[in-house]
Amino acid sequence: MNVVITVDPRDGQRRATDLTETDESRLEVIAGQASRAAQWLAARGRLGRAELLDAIAASLEAHRVDLVAAAEAETGLSHARLDGELTRAAVQFRMFGEVLRDGAYVEAAIDHAADTPLGPGPDVRRMLVPLGPVAVFGASNFPFAFSVAGGDTAAALAAGCPTILKAHPSHPLTSQASAAAIESAVRDLGGPEGVVALVYGEQAGRSLVRHPAVRAAALTGSVGAARAIQAAIDERPDPIPLYAELSSVNPIVILSDAAAARGEQIAEGLFGSFTSSGGQLCTKPGLAFIPSDPGGDRLVDALRARVDSSGGTVLLNERIRDAYENRATEFERAGARVSARPQVDRGAGFTVAPTLLEVGLSGLTAEIADECFGPLLVVVRYDGDADLDAALAAVPPSLTGSLHRGPNDDADVVRRLVDVLAARAGRIVFDGYPTGVRVSWAQHHGGPWPSTNAVHTSVGATSIRRFLRPLAWQDAPAWVLPEELRDEYTAIPRRVDGRLAPAAE
Amino acid sequence: MNVVITVDPRDGQRRATDLTETDESRLEVIAGQASRAAQWLAARGRLGRAELLDAIAASLEAHRVDLVAAAEAETGLSHARLDGELTRAAVQFRMFGEVLRDGAYVEAAIDHAADTPLGPGPDVRRMLVPLGPVAVFGASNFPFAFSVAGGDTAAALAAGCPTILKAHPSHPLTSQASAAAIESAVRDLGGPEGVVALVYGEQAGRSLVRHPAVRAAALTGSVGAARAIQAAIDERPDPIPLYAELSSVNPIVILSDAAAARGEQIAEGLFGSFTSSGGQLCTKPGLAFIPSDPGGDRLVDALRARVDSSGGTVLLNERIRDAYENRATEFERAGARVSARPQVDRGAGFTVAPTLLEVGLSGLTAEIADECFGPLLVVVRYDGDADLDAALAAVPPSLTGSLHRGPNDDADVVRRLVDVLAARAGRIVFDGYPTGVRVSWAQHHGGPWPSTNAVHTSVGATSIRRFLRPLAWQDAPAWVLPEELRDEYTAIPRRVDGRLAPAAE
Repeated sequence: MNVVITVDPRDGQRRATDLTETDESRLEVIAGQASRAAQWLAARGRLGRAELLDAIAASLEAHRVDLVAAAEAETGLSHARLDGELTRAAVQFRMFGEVLRDGAYVEAAIDHAADTPLGPGPDVRRMLVPLGPVAVFGASNFPFAFSVAGGDTAAALAAGCPTILKAHPSHPLTSQASAAAIESAVRDLGGPEGVVALVYGEQAGRSLVRHPAVRAAALTGSVGAARAIQAAIDERPDPIPLYAELSSVNPIVILSDAAAARGEQIAEGLFGSFTSSGGQLCTKPGLAFIPSDPGGDRLVDALRARVDSSGGTVLLNERIRDAYENRATEFERAGARVSARPQVDRGAGFTVAPTLLEVGLSGLTAEIADECFGPLLVVVRYDGDADLDAALAAVPPSLTGSLHRGPNDDADVVRRLVDVLAARAGRIVFDGYPTGVRVSWAQHHGGPWPSTNAVHTSVGATSIRRFLRPLAWQDAPAWVLPEELRDEYTAIPRRVDGRLAPAAE
Repeated sequence: MNVVITVDPRDGQRRATDLTETDESRLEVIAGQASRAAQWLAARGRLGRAELLDAIAASLEAHRVDLVAAAEAETGLSHARLDGELTRAAVQFRMFGEVLRDGAYVEAAIDHAADTPLGPGPDVRRMLVPLGPVAVFGASNFPFAFSVAGGDTAAALAAGCPTILKAHPSHPLTSQASAAAIESAVRDLGGPEGVVALVYGEQAGRSLVRHPAVRAAALTGSVGAARAIQAAIDERPDPIPLYAELSSVNPIVILSDAAAARGEQIAEGLFGSFTSSGGQLCTKPGLAFIPSDPGGDRLVDALRARVDSSGGTVLLNERIRDAYENRATEFERAGARVSARPQVDRGAGFTVAPTLLEVGLSGLTAEIADECFGPLLVVVRYDGDADLDAALAAVPPSLTGSLHRGPNDDADVVRRLVDVLAARAGRIVFDGYPTGVRVSWAQHHGGPWPSTNAVHTSVGATSIRRFLRPLAWQDAPAWVLPEELRDEYTAIPRRVDGRLAPAAE
């Protein structure tokens, strides 16, 4: 059995762990435990699962020091960033606790028996029920919030779905420690093994999504990884949904008036947004459209100065470091000019220099309008907003599109650009930056392919829907129904005979 | 260009129409019109689209006589059935008018800017917006309610998505007349061409789902058709969702006590359910589990008598007729015994005899537990309910599962069987029959693969969600927001700062 290796990206040191890649027989054990854990999660009901999620949040926080230390050594991300990310992970579990207590997410609906234009209609009641065990692929860049203790796990457990995680090879020990913190909370509530489980190794990931017990898969990663997982799913007799969040360029448009009014401030915000966490964020702005005018010049000068005076950043792993450097070289070969790139000591680890590239609007080739994971921003200079539409339409669809307006911008121009951005993104950001995604009820973290499959989100309260399916009961005796569908139940909002009935206070 | 043929299944006569298969240049015109029509649908807003749907319903009813006559000549379905189906089509358009006026379907959510455990959170607002033009594949067996004037069209237009329909080759003239009735309503409201459009021919169907303007596809049909369409979608650089409803066996379990208490009544209901509309319904029960006891014997005798004394049924087309006869032969070769099959005059059209087959529980092979489209029911005799679980678990997942209980049945047995059925179906029917799907808010017409892709439905208010995607606005000025997301708008239910706010009365 292959031993799992952990690598410290700060010095490149590789160390063997006591973990081994998951083989088929171990996967069978895990899948069996998950199927049994599904019954335990269902039996707890919504409020019991909310209690579990709160306990998991508390357990993550109780293990904060060890978890953050493990992640620092495996990701090279800063202590402050990882400390904040652990808080975010706990917030996500608590938010889904609220979602469960609120109960609207089950979309309970009751149509009593009635005469209809088509004759007597039976009693029909519908609500969402758990899909069953799900597979989640941890992300390299969020060792907590998009990994074992991440939003997918929180949403899936809230839904009532045991979660089998493919640990990302960049942080196996953090994954293990996160799973242990979750399992500790499960055990304290008398829960069985299998509520969460980990598998290690690429082959185990493929076997996982082929396993009959697994009912959905969620991935944050590359298009290549998604295609490999989809190919494995396609080998199933029964396809399962793959909720994938892949690459995103996140264009940001600075209108002339905004550049003139607050160029220095935008330079600061933009620099922070494309370099924080080493630019290794799915919402990192990769393209900034900046006007070719004096205000735009001052903005770019300020941005260049910040990049030139910055230091190196440790990237997550060797593969990401190499991809970053190759991609930057490709952009330059395709005609992007280096506007700023400090000299940095690359050392023994995976350190790189942040890079500011520049092209004119006509130089924005498909190659340059692609994602570069890491601290790289391409500034695209434009003359007049009239040419922006076509340029933005040539940028691949993204999670986000951002627009900075000035005090005197033409409302029609803003409307037009918002329409262009909205057609190709899942979130439109005004006068701000796409990074720093708020975890909240109204959040949407998705967009047209390849950023996601458009109709789902991996962040926010509605991400739970990925792990649920509708089930209808026709003329069922009350004692067979889930309590949420019994006439007398009023603790959650329901649609009764076509009308929304809020929860009783 | 290939001329489109229409065939009368009652006498097998083939006639050329004045329609031709759609070529690539015509498809380009249609796609361009659809993209422009999307703007018109968006500009009408929810209430304007509700008005359109009501007008379409009225137009369908105004053309009732001609539409029903066209469908009779192309499908061989009875006048009464087609007349009722046209009513259903109108009901579906009117229901989505109600869905639009209610407005909850946009899932409007507002999170005002606030301090969070992760720092200041921006203002985030989310609602569902139209996907864009969609492709719908008409079904053979519902020339109105699952075709050009069907639920997919109603849901898509309600969502704001122009709909390009691939006309089913079984009813080209009905499709054309249905489109004309819809277009007439669109024109009366000053709408453009392209709100609905038709394409003819298999090649046009494949080109349609490959077209960049098309953002989703919906199909009711065979697994083979779905795989062909998915293969065409897989050629796109940007995958689009395929909402497919394929085959379904719809097992029905009669418990011993039910057979004893009301065997004659169940025989009547079951006979009607598997033979009405020539058994050509996606919810037709294909397998009936009936106890091997005196009550079960009497039920099967009554069923046999009804089948033996029935006449022939005209099936929809030659392919379906051939498939029905081949499948019946396969079931017999696999060990099913003919229990009843009347002698019928097959004539020159596509007439067949209804067929009742019988097997013991141990004789229920995978071959026999598969869908046979048409008026065929396999009775599976069982001894005691203990063996039912394993047998039901071997039946492919279905749209529905039904259970008939008696006055004295053991609640634990019922619960156990409901759990088994629920794991493999989208709707559980108690003491009734799965055909005759109520069109209503709580309806769910879906199930695990292959009946559908589990998380969506093609019938009921929530089927609109297939044609919508979420979009979030961050820190947007109020004048950019859709009205549903402005603070002062109170006409629809919204989630504001995590709390559900019902619509103001």
